[in-house]
Amino acid sequence: MADFPKSILIKEEGPREGFQIEPGPIPTSRKIELIDALSETGVKHMQIVSFVNPKRVPGMADAEDVVRGFTPKPGVEYTGLWLNEKGLERARATGKLALEGKISLYPSEKFLLRNNNRTLEQQIEYVHRVLDEYEQQGITVERGSISNAFGCNFEGDIPIPKVVAMVGQIYDIAKEHGLNITELTLADTMAWATPLQVKRTIGAIREKYPEIEISLHLHDTRGMGIANAYAGLEMGVAMFDACVGGLGGCPFAGHKGAAGNVCTEDLVFLCDELGIGTGIDLEKMIECARLAEDIAGHPLPGSVMKGGSLKRLRAAARQGRE
Amino acid sequence: MADFPKSILIKEEGPREGFQIEPGPIPTSRKIELIDALSETGVKHMQIVSFVNPKRVPGMADAEDVVRGFTPKPGVEYTGLWLNEKGLERARATGKLALEGKISLYPSEKFLLRNNNRTLEQQIEYVHRVLDEYEQQGITVERGSISNAFGCNFEGDIPIPKVVAMVGQIYDIAKEHGLNITELTLADTMAWATPLQVKRTIGAIREKYPEIEISLHLHDTRGMGIANAYAGLEMGVAMFDACVGGLGGCPFAGHKGAAGNVCTEDLVFLCDELGIGTGIDLEKMIECARLAEDIAGHPLPGSVMKGGSLKRLRAAARQGRE
Repeated sequence: MADFPKSILIKEEGPREGFQIEPGPIPTSRKIELIDALSETGVKHMQIVSFVNPKRVPGMADAEDVVRGFTPKPGVEYTGLWLNEKGLERARATGKLALEGKISLYPSEKFLLRNNNRTLEQQIEYVHRVLDEYEQQGITVERGSISNAFGCNFEGDIPIPKVVAMVGQIYDIAKEHGLNITELTLADTMAWATPLQVKRTIGAIREKYPEIEISLHLHDTRGMGIANAYAGLEMGVAMFDACVGGLGGCPFAGHKGAAGNVCTEDLVFLCDELGIGTGIDLEKMIECARLAEDIAGHPLPGSVMKGGSLKRLRAAARQGRE
Repeated sequence: MADFPKSILIKEEGPREGFQIEPGPIPTSRKIELIDALSETGVKHMQIVSFVNPKRVPGMADAEDVVRGFTPKPGVEYTGLWLNEKGLERARATGKLALEGKISLYPSEKFLLRNNNRTLEQQIEYVHRVLDEYEQQGITVERGSISNAFGCNFEGDIPIPKVVAMVGQIYDIAKEHGLNITELTLADTMAWATPLQVKRTIGAIREKYPEIEISLHLHDTRGMGIANAYAGLEMGVAMFDACVGGLGGCPFAGHKGAAGNVCTEDLVFLCDELGIGTGIDLEKMIECARLAEDIAGHPLPGSVMKGGSLKRLRAAARQGRE
């Protein structure tokens, strides 16, 4: 019935996705408080800041201070997001973050223009330039990334063959630089995906590139986040981005909606129930979601943080029977 | 990949599920306003009140007034919920509701005691008594219903064989009364279900009772509502209860969580995207969700009412290309 993975890697992006879009201002110390609490949940990978133009994303103006302030936990990888050379330089300068290069392409040129201020041609030129720089600086590049892989508020539906062709473009670019791409992130940046489209897109990519490991970056703006993640799990996807409490949302997505990324603790709950390992302590993650809500100062969309896990209920029911 | 139905019937339960749990008090006129607005969305079936003890469920004390006040739309079936003979008599006395009998069993006796104040033995006796009464009064009975089919806050996990055996009990009871059960509702009353369990349970029931049409009553307390509905769709389920805006929740479920039933407009959005007919106008349903939120006086958990449908975005993107 399904090709579930035995375990998955959840990349926590709440601090980055969340604090870049929250109206704020949120004190740097509270951002650090959440990052340090998340470090204790069993999370193995966390994206904590983005190095972007503080005029466009004021919530990330304190990125350097956040990185300076948090306490790294051994075994956890901390990363930052950048969209240009200047951002990369800022990330490197912190000396505290894992620097992961990736090849980012966008089937929606309209979004690319708004988000990164480049045409697709300019993006490909940029990627080549950046890969040269990565090579000089010894930064590993093993990942490709396709944003708006399932649809775009500005471009409309994205045909699956266009996405598959874009995987080919990523491979071609990588080949020119002698790189081996092993991971491909499909981002549903604006929440256009349905579970069916997730399955079909992954199926079409796997048919042509069976060796590539796919990861999913899902948004929950239209309530499909967990259903889309489950579709991914059924297709054997073993890597997901997620945000504690359902924090997040792209500042340039062009819609109001409250909901952000697929919610970490809801995804952990689902995996726990399915017997899929995450390495994350659900109860601790729920505590982090409550902390994130307190920091954001408004209710977050996560469900399990409100409805609770089944652990205590199961234990109580078991006791009642004994 | 999936056994999707061509179209589904969504039974709207927002007015009943929602207004029985809202802390209120909500003016009768506003309940009627929502019911009348829902009648214009294309919904074909709506449960609008419950006839229960007003001391236990004060939000439903005005059930008769609500039924008296709403304007029935031709082609829409309006129903009420009852849990005992007195409730049935009240429903009948309105003269305005479709009276549908059903055989309700509960794999969790602990819930049965709290919700209906009966043991399972007493419930079966009650069902026999009620079926006799239905026969005398000429009320059709074609539906079986299993509450807490996927787990219970008091009883814990519900083994699938127990649910399958309960379907057999329903058939046995029906046989004694010469009834033909064609529909079976599985209710995830306390939001224990995962998509995998939904598929496995339906599969196990179908193996033994291939002819029965299954409907799903899903709650979203732990964020799995739409994923569970999608699992149902993949299994060919063509009947769903849902609540506009995600209103609802059972007053005796024993948890706080904000989230209620699976959200009607989110489910309609999913079906629209999958090409599965619902007969419901999504934009009108979104308007109803906003009305429901206004009536409830607090944010409702629905997502598409906040994130918006894709219709206008698609049209704008198409125009941009022309």
